Amino acid sequence: MHLPFFISDGENVQQVTAQIRFTVALAENLRGTHMSRLTEILMNWTRRPIKISDVEKILLDALKKLSTDGAAISMAFKYFVEKISPVSSKLSLNAVDCSFSGELTRGERMKFTLGLEVPFTSLCPCSKEISDFGAHNQRSVCRVKLRFKNFDGVSIEKFVRLIETQGSAEVFPILKREDEKFVTEAAYRNPKFVEDILRDVVLALRREKNLEAFAVECENFESIHSHNAFAAHEEILP
Amino acid sequence: MHLPFFISDGENVQQVTAQIRFTVALAENLRGTHMSRLTEILMNWTRRPIKISDVEKILLDALKKLSTDGAAISMAFKYFVEKISPVSSKLSLNAVDCSFSGELTRGERMKFTLGLEVPFTSLCPCSKEISDFGAHNQRSVCRVKLRFKNFDGVSIEKFVRLIETQGSAEVFPILKREDEKFVTEAAYRNPKFVEDILRDVVLALRREKNLEAFAVECENFESIHSHNAFAAHEEILP
Amino acid sequence: MHLPFFISDGENVQQVTAQIRFTVALAENLRGTHMSRLTEILMNWTRRPIKISDVEKILLDALKKLSTDGAAISMAFKYFVEKISPVSSKLSLNAVDCSFSGELTRGERMKFTLGLEVPFTSLCPCSKEISDFGAHNQRSVCRVKLRFKNFDGVSIEKFVRLIETQGSAEVFPILKREDEKFVTEAAYRNPKFVEDILRDVVLALRREKNLEAFAVECENFESIHSHNAFAAHEEILP
Amino acid sequence: MHLPFFISDGENVQQVTAQIRFTVALAENLRGTHMSRLTEILMNWTRRPIKISDVEKILLDALKKLSTDGAAISMAFKYFVEKISPVSSKLSLNAVDCSFSGELTRGERMKFTLGLEVPFTSLCPCSKEISDFGAHNQRSVCRVKLRFKNFDGVSIEKFVRLIETQGSAEVFPILKREDEKFVTEAAYRNPKFVEDILRDVVLALRREKNLEAFAVECENFESIHSHNAFAAHEEILP
Repeated sequence: MHLPFFISDGENVQQVTAQIRFTVALAENLRGTHMSRLTEILMNWTRRPIKISDVEKILLDALKKLSTDGAAISMAFKYFVEKISPVSSKLSLNAVDCSFSGELTRGERMKFTLGLEVPFTSLCPCSKEISDFGAHNQRSVCRVKLRFKNFDGVSIEKFVRLIETQGSAEVFPILKREDEKFVTEAAYRNPKFVEDILRDVVLALRREKNLEAFAVECENFESIHSHNAFAAHEEILP
Repeated sequence: MHLPFFISDGENVQQVTAQIRFTVALAENLRGTHMSRLTEILMNWTRRPIKISDVEKILLDALKKLSTDGAAISMAFKYFVEKISPVSSKLSLNAVDCSFSGELTRGERMKFTLGLEVPFTSLCPCSKEISDFGAHNQRSVCRVKLRFKNFDGVSIEKFVRLIETQGSAEVFPILKREDEKFVTEAAYRNPKFVEDILRDVVLALRREKNLEAFAVECENFESIHSHNAFAAHEEILP
Repeated sequence: MHLPFFISDGENVQQVTAQIRFTVALAENLRGTHMSRLTEILMNWTRRPIKISDVEKILLDALKKLSTDGAAISMAFKYFVEKISPVSSKLSLNAVDCSFSGELTRGERMKFTLGLEVPFTSLCPCSKEISDFGAHNQRSVCRVKLRFKNFDGVSIEKFVRLIETQGSAEVFPILKREDEKFVTEAAYRNPKFVEDILRDVVLALRREKNLEAFAVECENFESIHSHNAFAAHEEILP
Repeated sequence: MHLPFFISDGENVQQVTAQIRFTVALAENLRGTHMSRLTEILMNWTRRPIKISDVEKILLDALKKLSTDGAAISMAFKYFVEKISPVSSKLSLNAVDCSFSGELTRGERMKFTLGLEVPFTSLCPCSKEISDFGAHNQRSVCRVKLRFKNFDGVSIEKFVRLIETQGSAEVFPILKREDEKFVTEAAYRNPKFVEDILRDVVLALRREKNLEAFAVECENFESIHSHNAFAAHEEILP
């Protein structure tokens, strides 16, 4: 189902249109659950900001109101981050596909995963090297699933910035001529295979002290093929 | 609904997985139609090749078996065309989104539309001109809707070839190093805005004597934005 | 592209996540357009409520800033309407797929189309009649495209209400046991074919004095098939 | 990417349009892989039937031709199974979403997962019990992921039959009046919550000696809500 939620990220609160999946564990002696109680819990959360630690409160509500020992929720929404064009400094907004996924078992701590899908440009090193001029490039996305030790202070925007700077160049909704020159040349100077980008995202994530585990997928919408190039890695941090 | 169909294109017959919408006009004195009769008609066509003129036969069947004065069908499927890599001559297959749409009113001739969605590469002339090196490029698609005077001899593959050569370069499922060099340089030598590609497709279609009308949309999955560039035109031929 | 917009509907303002297509006519003497100017225009509209007559202002902006004679925009978003469960009176929100589409040619009045996709239940009259007990029913949607004479006072919510009451029963996000009994029995008492629902929507729309033209599609996600039943009609009002 | 494949299931061979993801492990000392070699391997498999044990051959090809220690492939396609209407005995075809997923590490046995998404009808026991007449029902799907001990003799069709009979009633593309009466009454006599269907699928799968592990998801496209009811379970068999 879809509901309007207010997502709180650091100082910012943003209203989003969230697609929600909300489930509870079913005790062996019960035949089915009370779906409408789940919707009632969600309705209570449509008027106040939701930060990551609030996801645990939603799940605790579910344990209580449905007398169950386990509950899980995922909310997927577009989250907007500001982009300033690199030369002309024009402000615009990029939509990032974002998800909050929480799982709670009674008596334990919530397992929370932040999902992000962040776009950027990639330019092929092989194409640059072998060609007398030009190099094929394309839009790419990086999808991450991040699991945190502490939920306080986790910032969606910080991780979007961390990821979008690992491609050959960033993408921007507004680019004047001088910006287009800048972005074209920046990408040409910084060629990266999909595997290079994956490695750089992995290295950047390993430096994040608050991460417990992560999974990364990078995908290039290859401009010279009608299929995509893909690389993936996952890791549990010590 | 989906059904397996054999599509006949010139000398070739190809089995496809078709998504079908099949409707009939409802006489004023009737409350509803007999949906299962439509499925029965379609089942008769799962074992023999369907060429464009057969779409009219399917619709005539519907007029007869459902005692109605109008019927319409659309079948959407992936159609595979062979691609030979430009230097190494490796054979592979590109999937093209294809649709057959027919409308028949009793006593009239079928109105038939062939829909195609064909991928290729585009390279931005502005980016090439203003940059000291490189130029942004990306995968693009051209969607056409073609209406024909005569149905005999219409070739899906011919129109795919006509369209895929209007971009900056063609896309290929297999590209060895020498092919990648060729395609990269070809695109760089042939920069085109989305509007340029549209105009060239329009000019090529105007030369087709058997066309009655057409609509064209070109879309670039811009590598420097997370949004797309788009151009469209439609025309009735004299 | 996607942007957060505030949609104004009568007394209400609702923030939405809008998917936008924004295009301008290209003069014959120009090779391409300035895409980023379109994004700049849109950015100006992310902070203030947009009502239907504002869509014309956005398009006028485009005519001016891109020196063109034609512009078109469509914005598609989920719009939430309140639903009160029929017996227990519990409040919840239903998401309706909504679109604003405007086309403006210099010197003319904007052509505006409101698109809505509204869910409800349908119960099959034939199944009810021939069966000793029960009757198959399913979720259905009605998609309308509405063209208006005057833009002031057009209410999204009013048309959602008008449409959702034409099925066999309404759908609700929260239904307690007493509500479920009510809805089940209401649908059983009010069996309708997809064609019946279409006719009733058409009759209701013909009574709307402010409509110039409309198109309606109804689709049942048949519970006894894995395909859907479909009916469509369009009309220009005198 | 998409390719036409011939899928072999017991005695039957069926041509399908497969969406493919094909990846290899990248050795630490290598910067990137040779994507086109993967496409070349796949092209070799477009002309001969593929049964489950052939997926291992495709992966062995990848280990060899890309000098790697790991490879994975998934192919997703619509597979058609025959349906005979229950009273009138009319033959038609139901499309089932099917996937073959294989992972191979050098020196080990392939891990293979068969994915199926099978549609049927569900009728709500609560709605039946509390209502004076009727009961809400809807289309449902069951998604399974099946892991096998032995690959020989695994039958797609057998598992489709096993699953589609666990709902309240089966769905059929062709239903004459006598069939519609049969299906309507069958569903009314056999009410099941989404959790009931899940449990019955789980019990049926536990009886399959050749299964090593499975995951099951059932989803009802609720006719009285615009959201869905959902239940899931996974299990490793002893």
